[in-house]
Amino acid sequence: MRVLAVGAHPDDVEILCGGTLAKYAARGDQVTIMVATNGNVGSPTHTKEEIAAIRRSEAEKSAAIIGADLIWLGFDDEFLFHERETRMAFINAIRQANPDVMFVHGASDYHPDHRISGEIASDCRIPVTVRLIETEYPHMDKVPHVFIMDNIGSIGFEPEAYVDITDTFETKCQMLRCHESQDTWLQHLYGMEYVEFMAKASSLRGMAIGVKYAEAFRSLPMYPVSGGPHLLP
Amino acid sequence: MRVLAVGAHPDDVEILCGGTLAKYAARGDQVTIMVATNGNVGSPTHTKEEIAAIRRSEAEKSAAIIGADLIWLGFDDEFLFHERETRMAFINAIRQANPDVMFVHGASDYHPDHRISGEIASDCRIPVTVRLIETEYPHMDKVPHVFIMDNIGSIGFEPEAYVDITDTFETKCQMLRCHESQDTWLQHLYGMEYVEFMAKASSLRGMAIGVKYAEAFRSLPMYPVSGGPHLLP
Amino acid sequence: MRVLAVGAHPDDVEILCGGTLAKYAARGDQVTIMVATNGNVGSPTHTKEEIAAIRRSEAEKSAAIIGADLIWLGFDDEFLFHERETRMAFINAIRQANPDVMFVHGASDYHPDHRISGEIASDCRIPVTVRLIETEYPHMDKVPHVFIMDNIGSIGFEPEAYVDITDTFETKCQMLRCHESQDTWLQHLYGMEYVEFMAKASSLRGMAIGVKYAEAFRSLPMYPVSGGPHLLP
Amino acid sequence: MRVLAVGAHPDDVEILCGGTLAKYAARGDQVTIMVATNGNVGSPTHTKEEIAAIRRSEAEKSAAIIGADLIWLGFDDEFLFHERETRMAFINAIRQANPDVMFVHGASDYHPDHRISGEIASDCRIPVTVRLIETEYPHMDKVPHVFIMDNIGSIGFEPEAYVDITDTFETKCQMLRCHESQDTWLQHLYGMEYVEFMAKASSLRGMAIGVKYAEAFRSLPMYPVSGGPHLLP
Amino acid sequence: MRVLAVGAHPDDVEILCGGTLAKYAARGDQVTIMVATNGNVGSPTHTKEEIAAIRRSEAEKSAAIIGADLIWLGFDDEFLFHERETRMAFINAIRQANPDVMFVHGASDYHPDHRISGEIASDCRIPVTVRLIETEYPHMDKVPHVFIMDNIGSIGFEPEAYVDITDTFETKCQMLRCHESQDTWLQHLYGMEYVEFMAKASSLRGMAIGVKYAEAFRSLPMYPVSGGPHLLP
Amino acid sequence: MRVLAVGAHPDDVEILCGGTLAKYAARGDQVTIMVATNGNVGSPTHTKEEIAAIRRSEAEKSAAIIGADLIWLGFDDEFLFHERETRMAFINAIRQANPDVMFVHGASDYHPDHRISGEIASDCRIPVTVRLIETEYPHMDKVPHVFIMDNIGSIGFEPEAYVDITDTFETKCQMLRCHESQDTWLQHLYGMEYVEFMAKASSLRGMAIGVKYAEAFRSLPMYPVSGGPHLLP
Repeated sequence: MRVLAVGAHPDDVEILCGGTLAKYAARGDQVTIMVATNGNVGSPTHTKEEIAAIRRSEAEKSAAIIGADLIWLGFDDEFLFHERETRMAFINAIRQANPDVMFVHGASDYHPDHRISGEIASDCRIPVTVRLIETEYPHMDKVPHVFIMDNIGSIGFEPEAYVDITDTFETKCQMLRCHESQDTWLQHLYGMEYVEFMAKASSLRGMAIGVKYAEAFRSLPMYPVSGGPHLLP
Repeated sequence: MRVLAVGAHPDDVEILCGGTLAKYAARGDQVTIMVATNGNVGSPTHTKEEIAAIRRSEAEKSAAIIGADLIWLGFDDEFLFHERETRMAFINAIRQANPDVMFVHGASDYHPDHRISGEIASDCRIPVTVRLIETEYPHMDKVPHVFIMDNIGSIGFEPEAYVDITDTFETKCQMLRCHESQDTWLQHLYGMEYVEFMAKASSLRGMAIGVKYAEAFRSLPMYPVSGGPHLLP
Repeated sequence: MRVLAVGAHPDDVEILCGGTLAKYAARGDQVTIMVATNGNVGSPTHTKEEIAAIRRSEAEKSAAIIGADLIWLGFDDEFLFHERETRMAFINAIRQANPDVMFVHGASDYHPDHRISGEIASDCRIPVTVRLIETEYPHMDKVPHVFIMDNIGSIGFEPEAYVDITDTFETKCQMLRCHESQDTWLQHLYGMEYVEFMAKASSLRGMAIGVKYAEAFRSLPMYPVSGGPHLLP
Repeated sequence: MRVLAVGAHPDDVEILCGGTLAKYAARGDQVTIMVATNGNVGSPTHTKEEIAAIRRSEAEKSAAIIGADLIWLGFDDEFLFHERETRMAFINAIRQANPDVMFVHGASDYHPDHRISGEIASDCRIPVTVRLIETEYPHMDKVPHVFIMDNIGSIGFEPEAYVDITDTFETKCQMLRCHESQDTWLQHLYGMEYVEFMAKASSLRGMAIGVKYAEAFRSLPMYPVSGGPHLLP
Repeated sequence: MRVLAVGAHPDDVEILCGGTLAKYAARGDQVTIMVATNGNVGSPTHTKEEIAAIRRSEAEKSAAIIGADLIWLGFDDEFLFHERETRMAFINAIRQANPDVMFVHGASDYHPDHRISGEIASDCRIPVTVRLIETEYPHMDKVPHVFIMDNIGSIGFEPEAYVDITDTFETKCQMLRCHESQDTWLQHLYGMEYVEFMAKASSLRGMAIGVKYAEAFRSLPMYPVSGGPHLLP
Repeated sequence: MRVLAVGAHPDDVEILCGGTLAKYAARGDQVTIMVATNGNVGSPTHTKEEIAAIRRSEAEKSAAIIGADLIWLGFDDEFLFHERETRMAFINAIRQANPDVMFVHGASDYHPDHRISGEIASDCRIPVTVRLIETEYPHMDKVPHVFIMDNIGSIGFEPEAYVDITDTFETKCQMLRCHESQDTWLQHLYGMEYVEFMAKASSLRGMAIGVKYAEAFRSLPMYPVSGGPHLLP
């Protein structure tokens, strides 16, 4: 199976579905991580260019841990909009990954880049299959199934299905720690230690299903339904 | 795996998850159909006693088709209430079936007996495991996972997961046809031919996932989450 | 057409659909007002028996203004429960009124008697047509269409359809003023003048559709759909 | 009365409200069908220009069947965005049609072009009446009432009102069959026969109200409420 | 201020609002904890009578820690129903506590006793003020404000307001540890260590507002609105 | 405390939170009113330039009544879109005001400019704190808390918290009357007298909490929760 996780910023995918991706990878599925923005405002000290370069490098290290491909779209952090240019870039990138299932941010998540990247990615699930929409990569054969990832802070998200990530939790932590530039930044911005933050949320979702750590998902409830929760690892 | 489907009236389970039950049965799972009421008002001509007897016999024939056990609670049709007596009867019956997964009516379905039987059954998922609640059958070892069945008329129900029942649709029709007393009754009450009615709904849900016939379900979104959509056949 | 409005207490129907009932009556439709409880706690000075008698008399005067029939079920105020006895009483009363359309309280209204009377009445829409459920009055020929009335305070209710009651607003006020025992009571309980209270809500709903006064409704969203907003006057 | 149906692509309006439009037309109302995009990607074999030309011609034939006017906005299929240019084009087109009621796609429909065209059209209902927004056609006198059409696949849509289209169903089929280029395309894309697909959905909605075929609608729940379900045919 | 927390079982109030109650108590407010059921099934080894006695004693110790009064209604665990007897018992108990604010379980919490006790308590907020409903304690002067507590597992609950309980978290742990009989029971039933379970949930809610531990609440959204979130400590 | 109210058009803030702003001002808080569009279509007689100038002058008079600062963004009325230019302008303006709490329009309000200005303002609450997003004014130290204002017509809005504005209602009326150009315009467009319109809505919300006039609000339910209803005056 081919799996694509679409994050707004470097580190989002790690926080919200890193354990699930590690499970897919561990069983031999092909995983791609796509990052919509370049994270170029996420630093209390660096310039935009510096921090963007640092974050790309961090994202590559993180992806490498599970042998995932990385697609870096490079849009400006905090300024993702749903327009023709971003739609085309997403269509092309999704075709490059050619996924059976796709993980995206949900419509009630906390950050506009999250919501908008999730909306663009979901809205591309049909166009990626259309021959007359021409991009660098060829059109796909079928509509990928879309899973919506949990919200940051676990607020306003009602899970449909859970993945027990107890066995890949350590890998998830390793992936997240690759984003070391964000440790001081998130301390600065929200006063939180980011691995601990992630661990709390994974732990709470685990509690719901009686395991140590879990991640929670919903399916996009729209026609045509091209898959379902059985596609989770 | 052990599977229990809880219907308010004889024929409800056939309409809403008959194809899924047939799939479970076909792969060797143990299936029980539990009917909360005796259907004793469902006739334009018979007495209550006559129609109740007829319907029990019809339910037995239907269950036999897939080798399912039948539990007949026998409460008065149209007068199911959520009270100690019904709660205890459900606890006992669920323990008798001892299911891993349980199918129940949802809270927005059209008929009070549906909504109330679904509420009672869901509310029993924890008590069935409690030693000090004593009934004829012994307490269960674990909380069964609860799937909520589609609404009659497919109104106000947002599916989370679908089961392709194309291969068991004919069996589902056979099961439903066992309830032949209802054919004239539903013609009388709603002006509908009941197999055709069921086929339309199954066909619409099938359309959503690109198959000929399907059934649609949700999981009960409550702690503790004791299973998930991977338990569907 | 035959119209039935089911209120929890004497004066509820006047507040929430009095103007609409007056319009039905004015065009010649047969209107029945059914009151579930006897209002026997609604007084700061009287005994239960006294205030119940007073309120019945007030309800009769109010109904008489539009030539409506009054069905007085007489259950204890504040103690309406959904059980066999109340279900049977509602079935019989609805059959007595034999309505094409029925107005009931909604599930998010402020008072338990409101929510429960609305639930019982809605749940009776099918049983009233069933021959084998025997009551004093004969079973009905068809399922009445159910409209849900606005919530008290207009909180948590999203209207689907509005009725312009500007021309019957004065009649509505007259009907409400018949319940004069409640004037001091509601002053006592909530610190409000009850005609002014009603006028504010009617005025707000009127504002939405650009008229002086209106009332707002929803249809019960359940199978079988036996009518629709075209049945409003 | 003047009626405008706004579809994202050629054939959407036929599928979701064709029977209702045929009823309006049959009783003498003036009907306009507006198509936002040119459908220029909807073909497995043609070029964009070819298929756009074919689809316009098909849309014209379909509209002609009920004597409806056709407004062809010609935006690129799959690339409709909510921006000044599209807003202005919609304002002008709505003014051209000058409708009393307007049918639009809903916010939970499956396709981004559907959702976005519905959002733009709804958002124009006030601006069309504003003198200082100048377009080719003059500003309208009043805010049209907005009906939201069913979702494709009938998923996630709770109907408020139904229109019995049994008597115009054959006309609806004829209209849809005009879009013959889509027959092979939808077979290719979704594996469905498009008239059968539509018939299933119409049949399910019909089942809800006890007729052979129906279409389902909601009203836009926003101030100012400029009409209501009584405006349905 | 006078504060009443209504729990379904001994320990519920501690888990869901123990830190908030401790804050009220610390600033001098009068706190009452009311427990609807006697917890008489919550043991893998004791008899019903033994465990009920143990749990009452545990609840008394827990309440004593913050100087709260304890009202013990003693209904059978797992068999709370909304009927006249329970309604009257709740009215009397609420009058005994005579609260300005009341904390209750919500309608989507996981356990029927939770949902039902919350429904009964909410439904009593008006009757407690009614003179003609006579109970042992006199009727109250005003409708208490109702806060809805978080759901167990933090599933399906959208917080409106948070209380930072970092400074009373240790007290909350002490209160919960008084319920030592439940430690082995919950290990047995759900495989969880109950203080750790509570700590995870408090920690997640704290994370949302940037503190170590918090509890989350909503107000009952119904007329008459007799208070608001400013009544939280 | 520093307070910012973001309205789509001149007069929106006055209608939806004028009384609350007056209370903040009266107790010494610093209040800023920001107006997204220039109101340049709101006249039946003037040119765009004339009416824009008139409305700015009216907005200044209104703000002066409570000593509030006015930030005038000047985007075209009816043509506000969520794009980089508007996002940057909002970020800069919010930084200029540097608020602790921010009032914005909600996602279900009636007018696209309302919904879009509310979305932009909410989406800026994090970017305003980010150093590398450079605007004229310096980045803020912390994320402001966001309150969502009531909907026009009080349709589709469920209040979480109310502010009693009885004592500042006269000031609110004075502020609104400054927008005298809108009196004839709204009469023209909606047939309503705008102070009376506002008074009805304030009166209805007041009724809910038992006072003469009130305004209703919700908090943005998203991580990080940077405040709460205790920040209301």
